[in-house]
Amino acid sequence: MSYLERIAVCRHWNPGGYRPFTIDGAVLGRVTHGFARRLEAFPKVFTVSDRTVTLAPELGDFETRSAAVREVLLELKRSGEVPLWRDEDYPVLRRWGEAPALKMERAAVPRFGVRGFGVHLNGLVRGADGLRLWVAKRARDKQTAPGKLDHIVAGGQPYGLGVAENLIKEAQEEAGIPAALAAKAVPVGAVSYRCERREGLRDDVLFCYDLELPEDFTPANQDGEVESFALWPMEEVLARIRDTDDFKFNVNLVILDLALRLGLIAPDDPDYQEIWEGLRLSQ
Amino acid sequence: MSYLERIAVCRHWNPGGYRPFTIDGAVLGRVTHGFARRLEAFPKVFTVSDRTVTLAPELGDFETRSAAVREVLLELKRSGEVPLWRDEDYPVLRRWGEAPALKMERAAVPRFGVRGFGVHLNGLVRGADGLRLWVAKRARDKQTAPGKLDHIVAGGQPYGLGVAENLIKEAQEEAGIPAALAAKAVPVGAVSYRCERREGLRDDVLFCYDLELPEDFTPANQDGEVESFALWPMEEVLARIRDTDDFKFNVNLVILDLALRLGLIAPDDPDYQEIWEGLRLSQ
Repeated sequence: MSYLERIAVCRHWNPGGYRPFTIDGAVLGRVTHGFARRLEAFPKVFTVSDRTVTLAPELGDFETRSAAVREVLLELKRSGEVPLWRDEDYPVLRRWGEAPALKMERAAVPRFGVRGFGVHLNGLVRGADGLRLWVAKRARDKQTAPGKLDHIVAGGQPYGLGVAENLIKEAQEEAGIPAALAAKAVPVGAVSYRCERREGLRDDVLFCYDLELPEDFTPANQDGEVESFALWPMEEVLARIRDTDDFKFNVNLVILDLALRLGLIAPDDPDYQEIWEGLRLSQ
Repeated sequence: MSYLERIAVCRHWNPGGYRPFTIDGAVLGRVTHGFARRLEAFPKVFTVSDRTVTLAPELGDFETRSAAVREVLLELKRSGEVPLWRDEDYPVLRRWGEAPALKMERAAVPRFGVRGFGVHLNGLVRGADGLRLWVAKRARDKQTAPGKLDHIVAGGQPYGLGVAENLIKEAQEEAGIPAALAAKAVPVGAVSYRCERREGLRDDVLFCYDLELPEDFTPANQDGEVESFALWPMEEVLARIRDTDDFKFNVNLVILDLALRLGLIAPDDPDYQEIWEGLRLSQ
């Protein structure tokens, strides 16, 4: 077992199984050949060829595109082809801060292999006995990754909300962190990956934050999505990542990024460069 | 002017101007077509085709390859075709920690577009008035980048020395930092880039370290390569990077990485993702 196995999971996908999803000539996602054939049923919205799926060029602006795609997705929802509907829109873009081409129901994002964005917070406690990390155990009835180990706070980045705003909102909902405390979280970089999951092709950028929490703070989940929280020494966290896949697949990357920034993995480690390169997608 | 211009300089090269330099089927560098033709004069060492330059397969091991290439380079040194001879060997490999295919005089590394490794140290002082960074001004008679602004400590990574060892050695030579203090430096990640410079194709990985220095420490250069040191507020450092190219080309990347890790550039900045992506080479 090794860190590199955790990274490999986040980079595992078969390019031959997909064709690009393009809008106005730009590749904004990737769809399976099977899903592409399904989209042939909606020729006013999608132009499907053997090689690509393109949003119909008549759909010229953000609002028109968003409404037309939504109609298709609602039909696929009714037929059970887009499960786990969230009623939450994601922007469709390649780089956060660009003008999105449209907005799209979150549940459909991996079906279109569209880039998803998220925020993950390393909740740290620095004490006499070294550095510890708050680890959440996801509720067993959660639809994705039930029972897996997770960050104290992590969430998807919906359309219309800034990253810093979203972090503060999620910190309140997931761990009961007051806004004034959450606002002290420091953005420290990002990780990115592309991999096949049950829900489709995940092509994600996760913005990473560190927050040093006072020793007397205890997280309290507000939304029922967390079974329990525990404070772990960093060495235990890293051993668990190295030896098991108990952490949710993408949480491993954010914690490995933390370990690199803290010098807990150093350049003379023979795996160093491969770990470091593996935390970011090669375009 | 913007951070992105500093990054663009470190990514500027013309792939069409080069052919791969391969050993045993692996691409370990890139040579200009002109230099490839020059290497045709050494058919016992290099097999040159229109598409590649390959190390002669008869040269089967590290010692044989290193000695054969050294003979060629000494001849090119005598004819002035490999200037700035250093008498310092670099390992030839793609990932630090791999077994090198051979070792090669440092001055020749960019002629072969072979990956170079280095260490850069952010020398930080945390005080009542915020975070400051020690900035060196390179001596005006230095062969590369005379007069440019630089890190307190930065150096190439020679064959046969660990990264942590090299940092401690360079810290002593360049800034008079005692070994016990330098050993507290924390490895915090890396940056990578590929770009054309006067000396050839630079394809580098720089290991980045942070060291918090006591307020009463003053660096003292031991090797004549630094004209002066000064302690700058981080905001001034970043403004200078944004508005000028006064810093040595690759130092900009290491300081931008520092700024991302410190949250001085945040995800809601529209350039964030492009800056973050730009600090690492896409393979």
